[in-house]
Amino acid sequence: MKLPPALSEQHIIDRLNRFEIETPSWGYADTGTRFGKFLQDAAAATIEEKLADAAAVHGVTGCCPRVAVHVLWDFPGGGGFEPRAVAAVGERAKSLGLRIGSINPNLFQDQCYKLGSVTNRDPAIRRRAIGHMIESVRLGTLLGSDLLSLWFADGTNYPGQGHIRERKRWMSEAFGELHDAVAETGDMQMLIEYKPFEPAFYHTDIADWGMAAAFARAAGPRAKVLVDTGHHLPGCNIEHIVAFLIDEGMLGGFHFNDRKYADDDLTVGSIDPYQMFRIFNEIVMAERERGADLAIAYMIDQSHNIKPKTEAMIETVAACQEYFTKALLVDHAAAAAAREQDDVVMAERAIKDAFATDVRPFLAEYRASRGLPRDPLVAFRESGYVARVAAERGAGKRKPKGGSSYA
Amino acid sequence: MKLPPALSEQHIIDRLNRFEIETPSWGYADTGTRFGKFLQDAAAATIEEKLADAAAVHGVTGCCPRVAVHVLWDFPGGGGFEPRAVAAVGERAKSLGLRIGSINPNLFQDQCYKLGSVTNRDPAIRRRAIGHMIESVRLGTLLGSDLLSLWFADGTNYPGQGHIRERKRWMSEAFGELHDAVAETGDMQMLIEYKPFEPAFYHTDIADWGMAAAFARAAGPRAKVLVDTGHHLPGCNIEHIVAFLIDEGMLGGFHFNDRKYADDDLTVGSIDPYQMFRIFNEIVMAERERGADLAIAYMIDQSHNIKPKTEAMIETVAACQEYFTKALLVDHAAAAAAREQDDVVMAERAIKDAFATDVRPFLAEYRASRGLPRDPLVAFRESGYVARVAAERGAGKRKPKGGSSYA
Amino acid sequence: MKLPPALSEQHIIDRLNRFEIETPSWGYADTGTRFGKFLQDAAAATIEEKLADAAAVHGVTGCCPRVAVHVLWDFPGGGGFEPRAVAAVGERAKSLGLRIGSINPNLFQDQCYKLGSVTNRDPAIRRRAIGHMIESVRLGTLLGSDLLSLWFADGTNYPGQGHIRERKRWMSEAFGELHDAVAETGDMQMLIEYKPFEPAFYHTDIADWGMAAAFARAAGPRAKVLVDTGHHLPGCNIEHIVAFLIDEGMLGGFHFNDRKYADDDLTVGSIDPYQMFRIFNEIVMAERERGADLAIAYMIDQSHNIKPKTEAMIETVAACQEYFTKALLVDHAAAAAAREQDDVVMAERAIKDAFATDVRPFLAEYRASRGLPRDPLVAFRESGYVARVAAERGAGKRKPKGGSSYA
Amino acid sequence: MKLPPALSEQHIIDRLNRFEIETPSWGYADTGTRFGKFLQDAAAATIEEKLADAAAVHGVTGCCPRVAVHVLWDFPGGGGFEPRAVAAVGERAKSLGLRIGSINPNLFQDQCYKLGSVTNRDPAIRRRAIGHMIESVRLGTLLGSDLLSLWFADGTNYPGQGHIRERKRWMSEAFGELHDAVAETGDMQMLIEYKPFEPAFYHTDIADWGMAAAFARAAGPRAKVLVDTGHHLPGCNIEHIVAFLIDEGMLGGFHFNDRKYADDDLTVGSIDPYQMFRIFNEIVMAERERGADLAIAYMIDQSHNIKPKTEAMIETVAACQEYFTKALLVDHAAAAAAREQDDVVMAERAIKDAFATDVRPFLAEYRASRGLPRDPLVAFRESGYVARVAAERGAGKRKPKGGSSYA
Repeated sequence: MKLPPALSEQHIIDRLNRFEIETPSWGYADTGTRFGKFLQDAAAATIEEKLADAAAVHGVTGCCPRVAVHVLWDFPGGGGFEPRAVAAVGERAKSLGLRIGSINPNLFQDQCYKLGSVTNRDPAIRRRAIGHMIESVRLGTLLGSDLLSLWFADGTNYPGQGHIRERKRWMSEAFGELHDAVAETGDMQMLIEYKPFEPAFYHTDIADWGMAAAFARAAGPRAKVLVDTGHHLPGCNIEHIVAFLIDEGMLGGFHFNDRKYADDDLTVGSIDPYQMFRIFNEIVMAERERGADLAIAYMIDQSHNIKPKTEAMIETVAACQEYFTKALLVDHAAAAAAREQDDVVMAERAIKDAFATDVRPFLAEYRASRGLPRDPLVAFRESGYVARVAAERGAGKRKPKGGSSYA
Repeated sequence: MKLPPALSEQHIIDRLNRFEIETPSWGYADTGTRFGKFLQDAAAATIEEKLADAAAVHGVTGCCPRVAVHVLWDFPGGGGFEPRAVAAVGERAKSLGLRIGSINPNLFQDQCYKLGSVTNRDPAIRRRAIGHMIESVRLGTLLGSDLLSLWFADGTNYPGQGHIRERKRWMSEAFGELHDAVAETGDMQMLIEYKPFEPAFYHTDIADWGMAAAFARAAGPRAKVLVDTGHHLPGCNIEHIVAFLIDEGMLGGFHFNDRKYADDDLTVGSIDPYQMFRIFNEIVMAERERGADLAIAYMIDQSHNIKPKTEAMIETVAACQEYFTKALLVDHAAAAAAREQDDVVMAERAIKDAFATDVRPFLAEYRASRGLPRDPLVAFRESGYVARVAAERGAGKRKPKGGSSYA
Repeated sequence: MKLPPALSEQHIIDRLNRFEIETPSWGYADTGTRFGKFLQDAAAATIEEKLADAAAVHGVTGCCPRVAVHVLWDFPGGGGFEPRAVAAVGERAKSLGLRIGSINPNLFQDQCYKLGSVTNRDPAIRRRAIGHMIESVRLGTLLGSDLLSLWFADGTNYPGQGHIRERKRWMSEAFGELHDAVAETGDMQMLIEYKPFEPAFYHTDIADWGMAAAFARAAGPRAKVLVDTGHHLPGCNIEHIVAFLIDEGMLGGFHFNDRKYADDDLTVGSIDPYQMFRIFNEIVMAERERGADLAIAYMIDQSHNIKPKTEAMIETVAACQEYFTKALLVDHAAAAAAREQDDVVMAERAIKDAFATDVRPFLAEYRASRGLPRDPLVAFRESGYVARVAAERGAGKRKPKGGSSYA
Repeated sequence: MKLPPALSEQHIIDRLNRFEIETPSWGYADTGTRFGKFLQDAAAATIEEKLADAAAVHGVTGCCPRVAVHVLWDFPGGGGFEPRAVAAVGERAKSLGLRIGSINPNLFQDQCYKLGSVTNRDPAIRRRAIGHMIESVRLGTLLGSDLLSLWFADGTNYPGQGHIRERKRWMSEAFGELHDAVAETGDMQMLIEYKPFEPAFYHTDIADWGMAAAFARAAGPRAKVLVDTGHHLPGCNIEHIVAFLIDEGMLGGFHFNDRKYADDDLTVGSIDPYQMFRIFNEIVMAERERGADLAIAYMIDQSHNIKPKTEAMIETVAACQEYFTKALLVDHAAAAAAREQDDVVMAERAIKDAFATDVRPFLAEYRASRGLPRDPLVAFRESGYVARVAAERGAGKRKPKGGSSYA
């Protein structure tokens, strides 16, 4: 494995050691499309099962100590969280060697949110939505989380259905109020996610990074932008956005996944591995220039409709490590020198060469040196975990929910 | 309203009289996205309720005597249809002034179809899928339907997951066997639908019109292509495909809906009315050249997540009539004359002028002359139908299904 | 023509009277694609010919008194503009009843800009590019223009070719310096245009509205965003961006044109008339709320490869008036009232009804009342202008340039 | 490098030995976008210079003995080709160790083709276009070529501009007549290329593979489909089309290049290397099943606007070899075995593992064993070829053509 000059293998190992990836609790549960859900016996249904799966992932990868939780699905009680129950979840995570990562409010599932949550024309519904977010801040505090991850389904399906600027102002007001609550915590940050469409099909209130950044800026210093790699229009140059946000000091985190068409939520690198590598390359380059890591939350957000959930997560974590390691191999000095000569071919080649390098053997060594399995996926398979939990969680205990949300 | 020379208003009226639009039973039921379903009290749950809604649409529009049925959702019995129950549905439709239109098998919802139906690597599952389609032919015969409408969710999410050519051959075999069954009926046709993605996100076995046409051709003369207006990649010129299929004698029917991004299933004309008009224009032009109507099944396939279901259907039917009437106003002779002079501006203007014409007053008159309300949507609202059935179908009778198929 | 309540026809007439559209000098010249240029005898070659054509457009439409000029193509002298020659152009315009509108620097054609202009790694080239822009400010002052219109081809074709953040900073520096020069003028504004791709095919330094707005904000109060309707990725909701920019006080102007695929530069309304109407609708709604016109520069930027240039311009101006008038007919109060009832169908219908209205008869009357031809295009044709200038500008005077830029 | 079981390195070497890639004469000449051409001193202007460049590419890669020629640009004489001059070109190629590959007619540059060539409404222009194609067949015969490569710019920019079905029939007639001419030759094939847009922006007469295949089938057995990897709408699954065409026996050849947005004509693998690998994977898999190579013409068609032309070509050839070699490493038996277990993860992994393998060391060895430089690009640079021909072809001998085709 060819290293960039002046960089030792230890350098790469150190950076990898600091490269943590958060996995999402909902990524261990059964998911589907509007046409239906294919159920897996081993899929997690409760927060306990999700934490167990997350611990299994962390066990074989060693880099996933954080688990994102979803307020509605993981703390269903409703009407305010029971502090003791919440604390129990935190304890449970801790006992498994995990920490609770980002807190994800849910503002899209309740029937009242049909025409919007924080952008609903009904002040009572907006109030409820804001309340839920502030509750989530409180939940985060209880759980020791420093991150609020905000995705809104808010938008409209038809021209005229909403007053776009009015909704924009409601959105801004909500962020303002939320920022106040966040600012009262020790160090919590709020990340604002954008998405061009789905489930809204005409306009989405936060449709692109420019809107997310405008809302974040108006909200205050605790607000940053969250880039979900599957939330862009066709052709969009995501690494350009990433570089731009880094330069503006507005990049807060990522939701990783891959896609070919829309928000397909496929495992990272399954469709466009070179793009993921190029995103990491922008980060690595910026870090080298600053001589310090960027404060970015790396999170996975995928919907494994077909693949076994925990396996898909392990696969994705390994893929992230692979592309990140490749990015660490880029000889930026060579690229810069070529640029100084207007040598497009060699400037590009510095990038391509790093991507072409097979880093799997290095990563196997790296893992082994940390007492981890060389091939996390194979080790996980050999552990028999899936069969075991499938038996436990059993076909018996839940009835096939069947149906689809399509009709 | 300016008519093309040599065309009387009667001409247009006659053609409109023959322009029937089929509505889908599932368009009257609650639908949603993978992020959840917003329930409506008035939404239909049973086939009886769906037929009632369809009759209400036909009642105010006068052009929707046919109702598409969905085998799994409308005839759930399973294990073969009970002929008497099926006959009862037909009777019910008849008593409401309706006919059963296209029969829609379901090959995507059962758990066994997770990795494909007719393209599943397991012969038993392929056999089951083919069996369901042949059962659907039988159902159609019982119901007096002459149309089998075939959409497959079959596809893969990851490179390598499937053997593309092998699956192609299984698909072809299934169509061959099905065609035999169809050919034994009096006059049934089978329409093959295509879609680039969703719910499969890497490859879809019938991804575009070219594949649908290849399968249809290989199957035999009873097989044609079904164009769903929402099933194309961004930028695709749909009217070109329509014109091409007409010329090849392969256009069997349409699923109408509108979209901005993916298969958004919005009401017709809500996003791109000019495109719908241009599609109709290709049909009208071909019909004028032949001096006869084309045998095309005009069907609606929409998912009304936000709008009241029956209203959305009436709105769509009215929109179809509006754009079709505009297409009937195109002065093709003027366009042709301009083309003969290489006069691009005036050739285009013949098209644009027809679209710019406000045909709503004419349509109001046309409807009144047939004893129909001048404004179907307003009349429907005034009828109080929605409130009445909402009360009947009641909040009480079904529990909020809540949840989403996402997680 | 149904007017919104509380709005008189005079209201609409008054607003139309204030709706001026700038035409571009280069829109009268021969243009093509990379595969070649199809030459027209009547195409303008000199600034005098372009002004004559612009005057002809203004003569039949009455709303196009401003002409955008292109520094390199219209004032080719090089090495600084000869003030007397520049003044002569201004005089010429004035004598034709025209004013010089936006000044358009050219930073993409000189060989030195191959790898960028203001983002070139070579400081001398960046300096030259900035110098050209500052010269353009001076030119604008000489010509009485209050608008600098800035489009950059700057970008890269390959990953690694450029250092994205470094280029971002160079871009920002250039805008800063330019803003100083602009601020010294009486009231000039600088508009920053964005474009996702072409001629750069990997990354474009100003790729979307978010980047343009960030650069404009950093530059200062004289800088705003310019929205070219053809410069978006597939599916992008342009009217959403327009509404967002209005609310942020950052919308400076438009380049109008239509497109189906990329930056196709087709005549306005030829592909998606409803979208253009929806854009106008956002503007009209905002103006009504404020009780004042928004300060927006409405400009055409099209490349008429096939259609006769001046005809295409007249057609486009008429189309803009048509869709703007339709937008003036939207009953926003009705839409708002429906929204208050969560009535999506009727809220949308307020928009659709205005679009469905045929405003051509009204516009014909409106034009006649101002002493203009009822149908500008037909009047222009009847004037024999094209044949006359074709004869004058003659085939003889220029040799067929043939060739293509493709190879 | 891990080989699939039962496959020796010799196997891969043998297949690579039979993997020839044709380079295009026009890829060595100056090219640009509609916004201008950036000139390179070393760019080839004459067919002699292009052949010299092609020989240089073949010299360092050893797999590019064929050169595509462009009738209009390489044999400009017009009015019929002078057989002796044509023969001289063939001789020249031979003396350089090259053969003439595909013959490319030009039906888009002449002014008469403004509104179409074989689909022009003027029979005289259609006749001229067909005549040019038949002349191209004759030219091919003189040059010993067995391939006619057909791309048409034919299409329309505006709805109504053309009669789509009429144009389809003219297109079909032209292919019919051409097929007769082709069939009279010994073994020539005609390949029909498709493209969704550019330079036509509303409809392109051969817009997708389905249309190309329909025309090819109607023409006869000598006609096949040509897949240009840059000619698809966003998201299109190209390897699916490739697999489908292979199964239908209709895949004739490729034009290789890469793209991010439209027909960007970037060097292969610069944007989406995994897609190129997946395309090759479909070919390799089909060849293994048949136990024989598929008869596919592998051709490069790129427009190197920024990179040095010959270097870009060498880089592309090396990239093709790299991805093709990776495809040869796919363990299809493992993938098939996983599929038999419905094991999506491992079926995909067989594909991913091959792609992740670094084949550059193997290729260096392979080249060295054939007496070729281990790194063709570096060797070419060291040869000083570019500087030498730049001096010869000189700045002096041609004046900067400047300008753009945009305006």
